[in-house]
Amino acid sequence: MPQPPREKWQSDFPRWFDWVIEAAEVYDYGRYPVKGMGVWMPYGFQIRRRVLDILRDILDSTGHEEVLFPLLIPEHLLRKESEHIRGFEGEVYWVTHGGLEELDVKLALRPTSETSITYMESFWIKSYRQLPKKYYQVVSVFRYETKATRPMIRLREVTTFKEAHTVHDSFEDAERQVIEAINAYREFFDRLGIPYIISRRPDWDKFAGALYTIAFDTVMPDGRALQIGTVHLLGQNFTRAFDFKIQLADESLDYPWQTSYGVSDRVIATLISLHGDDRGLVLPPEVAPIQVVIVPIPPGSDEDRLKVLEEAKRLGEDLAKAGVRVKVDDREDERPGAKFYYWETKGVPLRIEVGLKEAKEGFVTIARRDTLEKVKAPRSGAVEAVRKLLGEVKASLEERAREYLKERIMRTTSIDDAREWVESRRGVAELPWCGREECGRRLEEDLNARALGTPWPPEPVKGARCPVCGRDAVTWLRIAKTY
Amino acid sequence: MPQPPREKWQSDFPRWFDWVIEAAEVYDYGRYPVKGMGVWMPYGFQIRRRVLDILRDILDSTGHEEVLFPLLIPEHLLRKESEHIRGFEGEVYWVTHGGLEELDVKLALRPTSETSITYMESFWIKSYRQLPKKYYQVVSVFRYETKATRPMIRLREVTTFKEAHTVHDSFEDAERQVIEAINAYREFFDRLGIPYIISRRPDWDKFAGALYTIAFDTVMPDGRALQIGTVHLLGQNFTRAFDFKIQLADESLDYPWQTSYGVSDRVIATLISLHGDDRGLVLPPEVAPIQVVIVPIPPGSDEDRLKVLEEAKRLGEDLAKAGVRVKVDDREDERPGAKFYYWETKGVPLRIEVGLKEAKEGFVTIARRDTLEKVKAPRSGAVEAVRKLLGEVKASLEERAREYLKERIMRTTSIDDAREWVESRRGVAELPWCGREECGRRLEEDLNARALGTPWPPEPVKGARCPVCGRDAVTWLRIAKTY
Repeated sequence: MPQPPREKWQSDFPRWFDWVIEAAEVYDYGRYPVKGMGVWMPYGFQIRRRVLDILRDILDSTGHEEVLFPLLIPEHLLRKESEHIRGFEGEVYWVTHGGLEELDVKLALRPTSETSITYMESFWIKSYRQLPKKYYQVVSVFRYETKATRPMIRLREVTTFKEAHTVHDSFEDAERQVIEAINAYREFFDRLGIPYIISRRPDWDKFAGALYTIAFDTVMPDGRALQIGTVHLLGQNFTRAFDFKIQLADESLDYPWQTSYGVSDRVIATLISLHGDDRGLVLPPEVAPIQVVIVPIPPGSDEDRLKVLEEAKRLGEDLAKAGVRVKVDDREDERPGAKFYYWETKGVPLRIEVGLKEAKEGFVTIARRDTLEKVKAPRSGAVEAVRKLLGEVKASLEERAREYLKERIMRTTSIDDAREWVESRRGVAELPWCGREECGRRLEEDLNARALGTPWPPEPVKGARCPVCGRDAVTWLRIAKTY
Repeated sequence: MPQPPREKWQSDFPRWFDWVIEAAEVYDYGRYPVKGMGVWMPYGFQIRRRVLDILRDILDSTGHEEVLFPLLIPEHLLRKESEHIRGFEGEVYWVTHGGLEELDVKLALRPTSETSITYMESFWIKSYRQLPKKYYQVVSVFRYETKATRPMIRLREVTTFKEAHTVHDSFEDAERQVIEAINAYREFFDRLGIPYIISRRPDWDKFAGALYTIAFDTVMPDGRALQIGTVHLLGQNFTRAFDFKIQLADESLDYPWQTSYGVSDRVIATLISLHGDDRGLVLPPEVAPIQVVIVPIPPGSDEDRLKVLEEAKRLGEDLAKAGVRVKVDDREDERPGAKFYYWETKGVPLRIEVGLKEAKEGFVTIARRDTLEKVKAPRSGAVEAVRKLLGEVKASLEERAREYLKERIMRTTSIDDAREWVESRRGVAELPWCGREECGRRLEEDLNARALGTPWPPEPVKGARCPVCGRDAVTWLRIAKTY
């Protein structure tokens, strides 16, 4: 199938990304006068809203309850769990003044909300009968990043942080929740056509305050892995720190068990990156603000123009009635070619051209954004044809992205091959590993890259050796250049 | 019609309000360890979500585009418009540190977003052809309030600030927008059954940086007026300050004209306050997370219990299919009486009791939350009856609230009568006024209360005199104790 080129997309990805979010009016990053913070523009906001609708849908239907906690966390609360504060201390923004007064207690802009949520849970939850309890919120979180910031990928204000926090009466139930969360994220990314690999992060890179972290990663067009979701088993670390006990079924008192899991703006960055091409965005129909744009092709005479315009509007009404998000681009001061270009940049999945021939002969010409193919369909079957094509666009974007990720992951027993793979920005290398931190960190050094962790669910290795120490390997270690 | 009492609601309103938001699990205020900040709990969040759905619906359908701006505004941006910073300076929270470093530029937590939005608009908008432009966002804003804070009414983090910002190529078009905004808010409050009066704020109490401010006020059960929405004509004040010019139709360059308008958490506080009673919340069906609760009344024998429970579930399914938000409360460890009490506190508009008699004889008993009336309907017509009753609850809540506000406003020519009215917490007094600031401020002092402003649209007065200076009155001045 013919497809628009993905040359710059591939060879100059960071620039392509900066270009596409500006050209498609998704997110204005460069101009806001605080480093690492940007503005969601109307078109981008609509994409974001639909992505969040899908996420809320999945969370609400699995018994999660949405809440909204204050942004500001007093210093003493944030400091309660010692590993946690150690992990975040270097990147917390502090509010120190209100009006002209200095505050008695410094207030942190939430970097994440385990501390404030656990504190309030200790008032709300008293008994195992109330459990499991699953809260979530969609909020801004703040990190004073010292690494280079990037729009939507490494921000100082992460504006679309969906964080879930759950409470359980046993370790087992918390582990069950980890799996529920993984399945929820699978469904979420699947619906967006975003391919991923799931890894258990190495112990030296888990969330500050967790027993372990399971992460979703994908690979961007420049071959670097991007973390797009994480699930943490917090154990009793926070409930102990906050002296939060509940009554168990056997009437004893104990600290409950927690998990937390989150996704961020990076989901939308990935959606844009993995489906796009040199012409701009290519949006999956479910999140496209406009699914079909109708462009009238004006013929010479005024009378005919009117006929074409009316036909375009009627078609628009028919599609809208059928529940399709449609726009008729009837601007008179733009030529069809300019309109095609404009809507291609914005990634509208289907374009319908209506000219005099179409109006007279009773058919429509439909162009797919993903393949640029043009299809003709009888006017009487236009709604049906659009529905079918939207389904095909969705399926083919998913398929292409899945294939893409497959080609980005290489399993090898050779450190040299792995280094070559990673250095040349092909993607993720998987090496056999004995499981010891010493060897894992050594592989990170040898490859000058980062360990994403081991496959989840676990994939035992048989008959291979750890390329560092020569001991029997027990699993694979995934290593990649990362964001 | 019989109605539950509104005694505490009236006589001890602030305590009633604190009680109801806790008892109905709407908003946890007292326990969060930062003054003036609270937590939206799941049930409250669902109410909030539905209120925002209505607002977005109205704004989206009138050409407003949702955006999302960063929380942090650098000091130099906030200081650009001098009246504006003078108005807000005393209550801005400042971020001064990132990690362990002191920041070069202090960052304000947005108290409102005129400055950052105007700054970005100056890049986005170049020509009258792009106008009018209407943006809005729903965000937290922060005010370091020195007055006593109150849950949802006077907060330091206002978590549900919907601010709209518009740009126009002429003064006239900006004034047209002021009216569009007023109409949008009318529709919004009408759909929530919240009664209001609209006033043009006195010049000495307009928004910092505006030419004038039109405000929506209502009166709380304790007789104090509460501002629930404002619309500001900003004129060219901000566009001048930011040197933001556009090309006009005649090809000249000029500063465009702006308006801004906002509503906040107070809308939900009002919704709760004006419809509630001594038993708790009474929610309008459109925003009720649960519109109908079905409570099975278990008979003695196990077999009959099952029959009743099944009938309750079937009824629940029928209602859900018809698009009603319904919950079957089949908890086995609670008695029906306790369930009634629980759902009454939460303000569920209708309760259906299903007992053996109902199951056998084919009818349902429906209790209205607003009047406590019970109605019987044939089981076969249950869905229809529920629909009709939901409509009646809505209409009667609106009617009651409208009547309530009418009785809270008194027009008089006597300062003594007005003082007595205001002092005894009856509500708003309207006095004839010459329009001069001197006399207006004097009336505020005499009544020990605040001027809300003059009626909008303007209501000229004929034949009455300003009670302060004796000159001919030109309009009415509304005065009340306020929040």
